[in-house]
Amino acid sequence: MGQEASKRYPIGVFDSGVGGLTVVRALRRVLPGEDIVYLGDTARVPYGNKSARTVERYSLGCQKFLLDRRVKLVMIACNTASAQALPALVEASPVPVIGAVEPGAMSALAVTKGHIGVIGTLGTMRSHAYPTALGARDPSVKVTALACPLFVPLAEEGWTDDEIAHLIARRYLVQLFERDPRIDTLVLGCTHYPLLSGVIERVAIEIAGRPIAIVDSANAMADAARDQLGSGANRRANAGSLACFATDISRLDEIAPRFLGEPISSFELVDL
Amino acid sequence: MGQEASKRYPIGVFDSGVGGLTVVRALRRVLPGEDIVYLGDTARVPYGNKSARTVERYSLGCQKFLLDRRVKLVMIACNTASAQALPALVEASPVPVIGAVEPGAMSALAVTKGHIGVIGTLGTMRSHAYPTALGARDPSVKVTALACPLFVPLAEEGWTDDEIAHLIARRYLVQLFERDPRIDTLVLGCTHYPLLSGVIERVAIEIAGRPIAIVDSANAMADAARDQLGSGANRRANAGSLACFATDISRLDEIAPRFLGEPISSFELVDL
Repeated sequence: MGQEASKRYPIGVFDSGVGGLTVVRALRRVLPGEDIVYLGDTARVPYGNKSARTVERYSLGCQKFLLDRRVKLVMIACNTASAQALPALVEASPVPVIGAVEPGAMSALAVTKGHIGVIGTLGTMRSHAYPTALGARDPSVKVTALACPLFVPLAEEGWTDDEIAHLIARRYLVQLFERDPRIDTLVLGCTHYPLLSGVIERVAIEIAGRPIAIVDSANAMADAARDQLGSGANRRANAGSLACFATDISRLDEIAPRFLGEPISSFELVDL
Repeated sequence: MGQEASKRYPIGVFDSGVGGLTVVRALRRVLPGEDIVYLGDTARVPYGNKSARTVERYSLGCQKFLLDRRVKLVMIACNTASAQALPALVEASPVPVIGAVEPGAMSALAVTKGHIGVIGTLGTMRSHAYPTALGARDPSVKVTALACPLFVPLAEEGWTDDEIAHLIARRYLVQLFERDPRIDTLVLGCTHYPLLSGVIERVAIEIAGRPIAIVDSANAMADAARDQLGSGANRRANAGSLACFATDISRLDEIAPRFLGEPISSFELVDL
């Protein structure tokens, strides 16, 4: 398709759940003119404890749904899908595909002085996706990873800036800094975590007693999308549209706006 | 099979994950002579966000695994599977089947003065399994249910009796007692929650300013097993054996002993 025509096509974003709406939020700030199609595979969330073959199959299904809506770019806002299905998704897609791990890893390497901490879900930490991506680019960087299982339900409950959030962040980050007291850069390796970035940054600085660079992988993905689209970005003045789809819609009305940072007109239920 | 022969057969327990080990722990206290076969479908946990048809299919697979090991009794230590698959499991089983919901509901009705609170996962609360079971037996009882999504990761982290656990329990239970200040009986409707029963009971009493009866559904299930087996229980003097199986074994060594309350020799990985 010609670039002038494709410019008007939407960007497609998928995630295993609602966390990927933090990527949509970042996209709407960086590329406000773009139309966006979002798909949350909420009926099959989480992907983190499924086999690589299953994650690949589910991810290909999500991508096909987006490609059928003629997106010009696919964004995988799910760390597990990025870690396990990116090659298959790239191969199956006629348009560019951006994963969740690479942009965050690149951003971290751009700012670190040599000591990177990565936090995420058990599934993402178990996949070693971040240490692998970071080590492949700069083997001299020391990477320390920690799973923080309470952060996802904390973000979903909306308890993001109170005493409970503070104590939980403190308990996890004390463990992380015990493993490497010299951490200077902290990657939020889960799309839920941007909701907790305020408390995470505050507590990290408290513990370290010095500034810590926070790399929000949702922001890093939005920047990567802008770079990828280049002159193919839709730079019209009007705000772009947002169409949201999900494979199960229970509790979405309550949770989803917290991640998007604005009200959502509605989710359309789809069966993949 | 003759009762004398079958007496020596094991009891089978399955759950979507490791939480059902609290039922095994209760069983080993109430029926110490019994051999137990445990299966955790950890590769497909949680069942709570899956369709009823899928939950039924997975549950039948778990039960078949146990029946192939010649169990004399099947116990469904998973609230979702109990709520959605009990009829199919009973129909497919030549031996008795005990679900997770009925025993807890019966125990609560036996002690309540008319106001029951039920807490559990989002999936279980959404299924209305407890209000339905309670209402069918005594429509005059007022039932108030609340999902407490942070309790499962809290139990899995082992943060069960500290400031964080206390604050989280307080935040949830204040909401519950606001909805019905006259609650006198609280059902722990999730197999993870017995690990938090201490803090839950203490906080409930703090809020109510009077005693609250705590119904632990794991204990209620063990009592139901004793009643069901009757003279078919194995009352030998030696402690029974425990064989544990799981469909995925990541992090089990760390988490499982917390639920069982004793070390576990090992989990055997199985593919259903």
